[in-house]
Amino acid sequence: AGVDYMEIGYKASAELFDPKEYGKWRFCKDDDVKQVLDGLELKAKLACMVDIGRVKDTDILPVDQSVFDMIRVACYIKDVDKGIDLANQIMDKGYEVTLNLMAVSTNLEKDIDEALGQISKTKVPCVYLVDSFGAMYSEDITFLAQKYLQALPGKTVGIHCHNNRQLAFANTIQAIIEGANLLDASVYGIGRGAGNCTLELLLGFLKNPKYSVRPVLKLIEDYFLALRKQIEWGYIIPMMVTGTLNEHPRAAMEWRAGPKKDQFAKFYDKLTAQEIVE
Amino acid sequence: AGVDYMEIGYKASAELFDPKEYGKWRFCKDDDVKQVLDGLELKAKLACMVDIGRVKDTDILPVDQSVFDMIRVACYIKDVDKGIDLANQIMDKGYEVTLNLMAVSTNLEKDIDEALGQISKTKVPCVYLVDSFGAMYSEDITFLAQKYLQALPGKTVGIHCHNNRQLAFANTIQAIIEGANLLDASVYGIGRGAGNCTLELLLGFLKNPKYSVRPVLKLIEDYFLALRKQIEWGYIIPMMVTGTLNEHPRAAMEWRAGPKKDQFAKFYDKLTAQEIVE
Repeated sequence: AGVDYMEIGYKASAELFDPKEYGKWRFCKDDDVKQVLDGLELKAKLACMVDIGRVKDTDILPVDQSVFDMIRVACYIKDVDKGIDLANQIMDKGYEVTLNLMAVSTNLEKDIDEALGQISKTKVPCVYLVDSFGAMYSEDITFLAQKYLQALPGKTVGIHCHNNRQLAFANTIQAIIEGANLLDASVYGIGRGAGNCTLELLLGFLKNPKYSVRPVLKLIEDYFLALRKQIEWGYIIPMMVTGTLNEHPRAAMEWRAGPKKDQFAKFYDKLTAQEIVE
Repeated sequence: AGVDYMEIGYKASAELFDPKEYGKWRFCKDDDVKQVLDGLELKAKLACMVDIGRVKDTDILPVDQSVFDMIRVACYIKDVDKGIDLANQIMDKGYEVTLNLMAVSTNLEKDIDEALGQISKTKVPCVYLVDSFGAMYSEDITFLAQKYLQALPGKTVGIHCHNNRQLAFANTIQAIIEGANLLDASVYGIGRGAGNCTLELLLGFLKNPKYSVRPVLKLIEDYFLALRKQIEWGYIIPMMVTGTLNEHPRAAMEWRAGPKKDQFAKFYDKLTAQEIVE
């Protein structure tokens, strides 16, 4: 399809997560990935994700011994120092790196500004605007993308949207219009909760002739239709509710795993119950 | 939910369509609707849709004998004279009326301008911007909504979006920003092909306290989840392909009704095959 980077999962420390519980793809060990790649001609660069505090220095090989080209560092605004520190370590090992500031729809503007100011003084080349909860409208994207670009001269700004309210594609386009230049999307929108911007829609929008939508349609047809029957993502009402309320999808995912999964009105009542906190 | 108008279907002439083939809700006869409404307290105004050439004068009762308050007239730009004529007849019978200009994503700008100029000289109070194919981006909505509002001083502009590319909600918001004030949405997005802007998302966006999303969530839970298993609408790849290509969803709907319904790459090949037409 001409996609430039393929992020294949999390690289977490096996000392902190139990491989028996999480399976091997929580860890993205280079040897495991090499086994999968054996005999394949890889046309995209490979990326993985790390969370601060969930990965050890020893989990990350020097880039010349690794299958990965890029490592994406996720952190909350409050942990931006730790995120920068981890990004620096990863850059020292030779990787391309991005810093993904999660859940900024819940942050005060002054704290976002302060974090961007700190990042602007580092060598981190790429910073992501992330709508973790699928809570942003395109006006929010415009406001924040302009803020990121102004605060981070010389750096690339990326966009990562969740699709709780069917706005991930529209918001990704809005970020492109504002100047974002690293665009996250997933095949058929697969992703936690409501999922993400769909790759096939994004490729249909981009005019660069190096991209082709047909291989993605074939992939959906051959694998993702069946996968969608086994696990759920997409437009699912409890995920829509948490997006509208600007909340983590955790409550929605728990609800969907329980016996009342299709009782949407009850879920709405639970999340909107007025509890007075003094 | 506080919704102002509920459009319940088409009013076509039983002389032109066979009720045995189409069922009674293609015709929205007042007596049939009255039977359904018996014993219910109706809080929204009722609307139905008519196509030019598919309804006879005798199908439309004077408003004081009818359950309907509003009739929406759908026509293509090329038939705008006929659309205006039918809208005038319906206004003479006492109804609120809208004129819905379909498929304008395929029209030349000069033809849209000419049609709007004609409508501006009439008493038709409401004109809809319609993205019949789900082919528009928010920039297109901005361009056209501004054009409609400028060409139609004193009239209300409405917005009716299809969701082939998950843009119906985003485009409806964009139209609101530009000044549209009649907003079409359907419960859980139900509608032909990919369906429409979902009502529950739209109600979550609107700040007017008269609207409430909870009854819609309950309706989805009680009826629409089951209905969605019987008939399909929503994000379906062939519908996405026709939207991307700015084409009528007809080919996608036929494909989905056939034996190759999940062969998306083949469908894409069929629609993008280069045929030279001299």
